[in-house]
Amino acid sequence: MPPIDIAKRVYDHSWKLDPIIRSLLDTDFYKLLMLQMIWELYPDVQATFSLVNRTRRVRIAEEIDEKELRDQLDHARSLRLSHKEMIWLAGNTFYGRSQIFKPDFLAWLKDFRLPEYELHREDGQYALEFSGSWAEVSMWEIPALAIVNELRSRSALRGMGRFALDVLYARAKAKLWNKVEMLKQLPDLRIADFGTRRRHSHLWQRWCVEALKEGLGESFVGSSNVLLAMGSDLEAIGTNAHELPMVVAALARNDDELREAPYRVLKDWEKLYSGNLLVVLPDTFGTTTFLRHAPEWVEDWTGFRPDSLPPIEGGEQIIAWWHSRGHDPRDKLIVFSDALDADTIVSTYKHFAGRTRMSFGWGTNLTNDFEGCAPEPLDGLQAISLVCKVTRVNGHPAVKLSDNPEKVTGDKTEIDRYLDIFGTAGRVRRAVLV
Amino acid sequence: MPPIDIAKRVYDHSWKLDPIIRSLLDTDFYKLLMLQMIWELYPDVQATFSLVNRTRRVRIAEEIDEKELRDQLDHARSLRLSHKEMIWLAGNTFYGRSQIFKPDFLAWLKDFRLPEYELHREDGQYALEFSGSWAEVSMWEIPALAIVNELRSRSALRGMGRFALDVLYARAKAKLWNKVEMLKQLPDLRIADFGTRRRHSHLWQRWCVEALKEGLGESFVGSSNVLLAMGSDLEAIGTNAHELPMVVAALARNDDELREAPYRVLKDWEKLYSGNLLVVLPDTFGTTTFLRHAPEWVEDWTGFRPDSLPPIEGGEQIIAWWHSRGHDPRDKLIVFSDALDADTIVSTYKHFAGRTRMSFGWGTNLTNDFEGCAPEPLDGLQAISLVCKVTRVNGHPAVKLSDNPEKVTGDKTEIDRYLDIFGTAGRVRRAVLV
Repeated sequence: MPPIDIAKRVYDHSWKLDPIIRSLLDTDFYKLLMLQMIWELYPDVQATFSLVNRTRRVRIAEEIDEKELRDQLDHARSLRLSHKEMIWLAGNTFYGRSQIFKPDFLAWLKDFRLPEYELHREDGQYALEFSGSWAEVSMWEIPALAIVNELRSRSALRGMGRFALDVLYARAKAKLWNKVEMLKQLPDLRIADFGTRRRHSHLWQRWCVEALKEGLGESFVGSSNVLLAMGSDLEAIGTNAHELPMVVAALARNDDELREAPYRVLKDWEKLYSGNLLVVLPDTFGTTTFLRHAPEWVEDWTGFRPDSLPPIEGGEQIIAWWHSRGHDPRDKLIVFSDALDADTIVSTYKHFAGRTRMSFGWGTNLTNDFEGCAPEPLDGLQAISLVCKVTRVNGHPAVKLSDNPEKVTGDKTEIDRYLDIFGTAGRVRRAVLV
Repeated sequence: MPPIDIAKRVYDHSWKLDPIIRSLLDTDFYKLLMLQMIWELYPDVQATFSLVNRTRRVRIAEEIDEKELRDQLDHARSLRLSHKEMIWLAGNTFYGRSQIFKPDFLAWLKDFRLPEYELHREDGQYALEFSGSWAEVSMWEIPALAIVNELRSRSALRGMGRFALDVLYARAKAKLWNKVEMLKQLPDLRIADFGTRRRHSHLWQRWCVEALKEGLGESFVGSSNVLLAMGSDLEAIGTNAHELPMVVAALARNDDELREAPYRVLKDWEKLYSGNLLVVLPDTFGTTTFLRHAPEWVEDWTGFRPDSLPPIEGGEQIIAWWHSRGHDPRDKLIVFSDALDADTIVSTYKHFAGRTRMSFGWGTNLTNDFEGCAPEPLDGLQAISLVCKVTRVNGHPAVKLSDNPEKVTGDKTEIDRYLDIFGTAGRVRRAVLV
């Protein structure tokens, strides 16, 4: 008989909660970069973030228990950055730059805790909202999504035998490794894990990151997950998200300011960051409009992250723009990050090889692809298009138009106003899977 | 930081040997049934068993270390049946019969230890032989094969990283489970694990057996491995092997006795066993000859185990024989056990459904199919056709003709004598893979 660790067994018995979020660094790196900017430039803005399930057919409130959800959210609220984490943030080099986080920002972050939430059920969904200072509520985005997604997985797996679980993870591992072997064929590929928010679970994301590290070597440039980057000595990857232009747009006092908002936010960003952190996210109010009216200085930014057009179409549009403005795309960078999987990464890579620098942020299909892995198909294991978006700013509705009308968020009247100002050039409706 | 079990860690450090064979019951059940017969009816026969690698291109002595091999063989020699194991053998019901093992046999078995071995290298292979009392040396067959096969796997996996190993086993699990899902579709399938001798490793066989138990439920009728049967509360499965007619044939004092040997051994068997244990293995000196000259009482045996013809051809031959002798094959049983895999099991099952009772003994392709599982193809993970056969009996060479001349074993002159007596009817050369 093998010896049994009695203490461990008893500890396991008495578990009340297996926390999904165990550290405030279990979030995406871009949240910290944005947070520093928000904290410095927009300290007084009040905002609301709301959970939105774009996959309406999945009735989340019927899949996961409200008490469990509250327990996990409450546990996340109990966290603070540890001493070790603070030292790492202050002492580490990010994107080749040391001390990217300023001492007074870190001093504030040291005492940071996630603010309150509001939760109720609404037609089979959870209405989950975070209202308060923008800097504080913004930090809920990733943990809220990770919690809801992992609770869905846990609920789907509940009742499966130990053996069925073993096979499930064996298949998922085999499946991911086959993707790794495809990607391995691409010389000089640069790829990062962007899968925190939609991950099947924290432990599974950890396995996936280790798999990429082991299988892709130098081609795996890092993880957007700060905790995993710290734990596995990887680069923390990420720049900025739609919430910046959305909030700055919502703060606009008139149509002219609104029109200028997508560029103003880049000016804000430049005050804090440089180099490879200068990556434009152009699609918040439509990429075509953005490019057409972009001031000359935008051309000096390092690259673009097209996020709602198919990657080849999105990339071509940006390359054409660089050409039209007299720049050589080979000096520039495109970060692909929308709905990627191994096959689209390969085809995109091959399409643009030699024409521009590329990197890939691989999300949901990296950390939550269990299609065909369960002994019986399990709906609850299928990733859904769940987002946590800023919805109100100082009492005004926030809007995102996107290049894909399926991804539009905001109040109807306000959307119409934005469409009047930004136009609809280049916008095409496409199904959103994840 | 998770707590570390220091005692376990230190114990692991100080391991000198991870034994492959940890119990004398880690063998095939038929060895015990045969052993009782040998002990009772042939106590004075001296025999030699020899390891034969039919896959000559694989140079085993270059793959595995002689010291390691000796350590494992020596460890197996140190084993005796434990008190618990003796109680289980005495008290359990096998094939519906209690007390199948007689008290005086068990009293002898209680002190059984594996006898000495002789080992030397010969042209890239190991010449491994066991000489002594038939009853004693016969028991080396399965542990010797399991040890050599597992040492090959260990050697192939040496130097692979923890992650590559994780992926390897994940793929092997996914692969086996896909086979289980194929087999699940067959109503009233009866299938057993026959994979001890060729297994990748003991732990892997255990996983495979648990997989069949979980996935096939009632269709999984048990394991030939006595230790696993005991451990997992399964039926121990098996009847008899070629060594019985081979030894009895080698003991024949003249051609008439030789001609009668294949039937005499069945008479011996009947003295000890009945019911579903009355399964004829007809191919030792050619199935066609065996059937043609079989006395009437052989028709009363429950079934046949064709072991060197392709299953459909072998089954058809036996069914035709039952018909020709006026028996309804639907009352009879065919045990398929040669080189099966999920696809051949399915096709054989479908071919004979409703025409006879069937059961399947699934061996090498159950417990040692790692094709396509390693990150890079590894020759050392490919199962080979390794056998441990009786080669000499009281100083005379032992012979097996088989239905497939590729499987013939024995001394050239003696083989020719056997061919003169038994003829070559129905023998067809076919490649032996496992």
